[in-house]
Amino acid sequence: MLPPAPLDLLRAELARRNLDACILPNTDPHQSEYLAPHWQGISWLSGFTGSAATLAVTASFAGLWTDSRYFIQAARELAGSGVTLMKLRVPHTPEFIEWLCTELPAGARVGIDGRLFALPRYRELEQRLQAAGMHLEDAGDLLAPVWQERPGLPLQPVYSVEALLPGPPRAARLESVRSQMAARNLDWHLLAAVDDIAWVFNLRGSDVPFNPVFLAFALIGRSSATLFLHPEQVTHALKAELAAAGVTLAHYTRLPEVLGSLARGSQLLLDPATTSIALRRAIPEGVTVQTDASLPAQAKVRKGPEALAAIRQAMVRDGIAWVQMLCWLESALRSGQPVTEYSLAQQLETFRSADPSYRGPSFPSIVGYGPQGAIVHYRPEAEHAAQILPEGLLLIDAGGQYLHGTTDMTRTWALGEPSPVQQTHYTLVLKGMIALSRAVFPAAARGVHLDVLARQFLWQEGLNYGHGTGHGVGFFLCVHESPPGISPAASGPAQAPLEPGMVLSNEPGLYLEGQYGIRIENLIAVQPWPQAPESGFLAFETLSLCPIDLRLLDLARLTDDERGWLNAYHQRVLDALSPGLAPAEQAWLHARCAHI
Amino acid sequence: MLPPAPLDLLRAELARRNLDACILPNTDPHQSEYLAPHWQGISWLSGFTGSAATLAVTASFAGLWTDSRYFIQAARELAGSGVTLMKLRVPHTPEFIEWLCTELPAGARVGIDGRLFALPRYRELEQRLQAAGMHLEDAGDLLAPVWQERPGLPLQPVYSVEALLPGPPRAARLESVRSQMAARNLDWHLLAAVDDIAWVFNLRGSDVPFNPVFLAFALIGRSSATLFLHPEQVTHALKAELAAAGVTLAHYTRLPEVLGSLARGSQLLLDPATTSIALRRAIPEGVTVQTDASLPAQAKVRKGPEALAAIRQAMVRDGIAWVQMLCWLESALRSGQPVTEYSLAQQLETFRSADPSYRGPSFPSIVGYGPQGAIVHYRPEAEHAAQILPEGLLLIDAGGQYLHGTTDMTRTWALGEPSPVQQTHYTLVLKGMIALSRAVFPAAARGVHLDVLARQFLWQEGLNYGHGTGHGVGFFLCVHESPPGISPAASGPAQAPLEPGMVLSNEPGLYLEGQYGIRIENLIAVQPWPQAPESGFLAFETLSLCPIDLRLLDLARLTDDERGWLNAYHQRVLDALSPGLAPAEQAWLHARCAHI
Repeated sequence: MLPPAPLDLLRAELARRNLDACILPNTDPHQSEYLAPHWQGISWLSGFTGSAATLAVTASFAGLWTDSRYFIQAARELAGSGVTLMKLRVPHTPEFIEWLCTELPAGARVGIDGRLFALPRYRELEQRLQAAGMHLEDAGDLLAPVWQERPGLPLQPVYSVEALLPGPPRAARLESVRSQMAARNLDWHLLAAVDDIAWVFNLRGSDVPFNPVFLAFALIGRSSATLFLHPEQVTHALKAELAAAGVTLAHYTRLPEVLGSLARGSQLLLDPATTSIALRRAIPEGVTVQTDASLPAQAKVRKGPEALAAIRQAMVRDGIAWVQMLCWLESALRSGQPVTEYSLAQQLETFRSADPSYRGPSFPSIVGYGPQGAIVHYRPEAEHAAQILPEGLLLIDAGGQYLHGTTDMTRTWALGEPSPVQQTHYTLVLKGMIALSRAVFPAAARGVHLDVLARQFLWQEGLNYGHGTGHGVGFFLCVHESPPGISPAASGPAQAPLEPGMVLSNEPGLYLEGQYGIRIENLIAVQPWPQAPESGFLAFETLSLCPIDLRLLDLARLTDDERGWLNAYHQRVLDALSPGLAPAEQAWLHARCAHI
Repeated sequence: MLPPAPLDLLRAELARRNLDACILPNTDPHQSEYLAPHWQGISWLSGFTGSAATLAVTASFAGLWTDSRYFIQAARELAGSGVTLMKLRVPHTPEFIEWLCTELPAGARVGIDGRLFALPRYRELEQRLQAAGMHLEDAGDLLAPVWQERPGLPLQPVYSVEALLPGPPRAARLESVRSQMAARNLDWHLLAAVDDIAWVFNLRGSDVPFNPVFLAFALIGRSSATLFLHPEQVTHALKAELAAAGVTLAHYTRLPEVLGSLARGSQLLLDPATTSIALRRAIPEGVTVQTDASLPAQAKVRKGPEALAAIRQAMVRDGIAWVQMLCWLESALRSGQPVTEYSLAQQLETFRSADPSYRGPSFPSIVGYGPQGAIVHYRPEAEHAAQILPEGLLLIDAGGQYLHGTTDMTRTWALGEPSPVQQTHYTLVLKGMIALSRAVFPAAARGVHLDVLARQFLWQEGLNYGHGTGHGVGFFLCVHESPPGISPAASGPAQAPLEPGMVLSNEPGLYLEGQYGIRIENLIAVQPWPQAPESGFLAFETLSLCPIDLRLLDLARLTDDERGWLNAYHQRVLDALSPGLAPAEQAWLHARCAHI
């Protein structure tokens, strides 16, 4: 007899608790994007391994809401699981709420794990279910009683980066947070986002894939600072180092109790975007709660000159690995050596790993050959990856974590003779990428204002892409860091003013379903406008270093300014990367960086 | 002995009422931009005649908050009035609240006329004064007891435009509003904005300068519709015509009483942006209030094909008057005839008035010669206007109300040999204006996304302008109609999606204080993209017709596409306007529309 399916186990638990439905978002108590296996309940229940999904389960139905990036993958992974794919019309919106309101009877009881719902989403859910006459209940961890083989919480070592990374030491970071707390009359600052905590305590970890973070909460007082984590993650030496900076440790699970003991009349700041309703409820009524972006979040997005200098080093190291990989690929294809999307991603890893400061990819590498290039978040797997042939287009989007910084780059590469239409499409995308790279803008400008610079040439031909143009990038931290952002979204990171030191991606694209995808991505840093640094105008410094495929250009569509930008960029690439390459690779790079 | 100054009279009234301060915004109970003399209390108290101002008066201080457009004018007009000019750092923000909170003691009583405060501004004021320990009181009309010579409410005739203007008749407009009310389960729709009311009842009036509207409120029910106005404004014939459409009349002052009698349990929609706190308070507690943009506001911004056809006619008529005026000006300057900024505006009026459908200017004409061109809302007055000489730059921004539509256009004209720097500046502004004119964009785009198209070339040189790029324009209604809008503002009209039929201005500029101003403005209409009308992409049709001064161009800075646009535009201008011009004017136009 087969063991009961996970979904049946969950349904039995719902019945035991007298719940009509439950909702499981794909996140953890820190609102993380990348999850430790312990928090991958959606994958256990449904088989779906993508991010940005919500599962709703009733006695007779289970649906997984995800966006168009994952439709193909979800259809394959959900097959036979009993879970229905619910296609989101608008990414990241809670369309499941509408479904619940329509499908469940008035009086229905809906259970959630309050630790997984940040305040705005919880409030929205609560209001709409209430309006529909239903009850929302914090049922705690519904998976705990039924998930027998559940991986434990990660317990990887936490390490100090005081001596490894540039920038102010943790004492100065804490001091800076506290002086802002004093100015706002705050007694306490609660931190739940793992990258905020890594930044302010100048620590890193390996609790989740791709991001060098550890699972912890923190409570910073005017003269105290407590890190809530599993004590076995911290060595005695590090504990002493932290104690020297006035940082004490407490067990990961003790935060609600400590919050409950805060003095009446004290003032606490929390970031609603990353604080769960469960934590919010642990704060006693007499404590005044201010809500705003966390103070570390506001500080860590502005990289200082030392961090930017290190990031430029990471770009050289990553660029060398990319050039080696592309040169190797062309040679392998010429000699008839078999290469798949998966093995090429492995090859990039091999080249990167030669660098001692390399710590692994910053997100799952996207290597999409031909039609797979049109799947925005395609991730080749060993068993499904396509063979790469010397024809058509190849899209590679990959990033690395280096002690010098976090990288993220996309190139679209011609493996055979490109068609004129492919050249037109590629050139329209590139023109947008160059226009954003060359932008000059006043200090008050926000990402939402600049987005059209990258889209204007595609729009002019009735073409567009369905994702944002740019996201913020951390410094040896998360590859998605907010704010800033560059997109047309009416709320979120693209509404934050762009400030010197911010690092963003610049990645317009074009996707022809079933044919090919084009995306060209560099990281860029906001800097004072070099021509007049005191004018209040800002500009972007392009950070990423790797050739842009000249064979895909329709030269007639480029203006003199665009050619000039491309030639100067290729000269920089050549100068920066050549010293780290073998002679054959140097010759290859020289050809790919030809003056046009 | 001099009579007491208005400010002293108001202070005596404050003392009588035991108020420590009062706040007077420059608006009327309909949140109108242009005010009947009855509502020009700020002008009576302070002498200031601009728009967008707020006056705060205490026993010892009186301050007028206005934005940079009015600093020069306000300084002159306030001189000797006892009122201090308070320069707004950010236009349209309530910086006076901060001042009140800082300057007044806790416990202070602040009086306002609740009819003049729309809900969002009132709520903000109330919350912040409360937080500062002060009391906000609706003191009613504080001017009534003290303003002896106050003009009465306007009582101009209201007239029907059923036979005069294209578009659906009022019965169909009411029917459309009611079907939307039914879909939203609404029993009542309260209208306070005068252009909403003019649109839905297909009526016009002359109660305020520049806008063909009348002061009224309206309450639309599922089978009734009541117009609240002064009965003497409506002839018997019109009363009968309205009755035939089920529209009844009530006295202007009776609305609060009627609102107070609405049945408990009924649902009412109001637009918070135009509904006063006084009206909101008149609605009984048992009535459920929904807040949203008014239904007429949402409908009137999308002009139908018949209205757009009429608007194109208005553009031809207005363009002819502009060409006559510019041709006349150049000839007058050549012959040494004296021309001032004021007399030139009069001359434009003379040429326009030859058209029987012309009803007057749509806003006070801006004719700014030399340094005055840099004052964004400059309005020449007979006694202060500058003499125009055959040298330097002249900025003319003027619009007309025609039965065929509302116009608004700006041209910057070279009266002598322009300098290379002037040509550079002019060309950068023009390139932005052309880029926006030529924009193609997907249906979901909002004005905030397109704004940078008009600014990008200026930004590239570290230049910018401090106003929005475009505002919505009514159809024989208000020249400022919201939404849509094109600007970087984080809220307001620029956040509304652009939809076919919307008419906007496209008016980038550049202002060099003390030297000259440049602005080039055409009206544009949103249309399906002509190259693929079913694609979901949209584009702009340029409506305004008048030459763009070629002598101010730096031709080397124009791309082939930009030259192509300009040549095609000038050909359209030539074809459309020549038939209405005298031979000498035709010859002049031909030269000004030369192919480049």
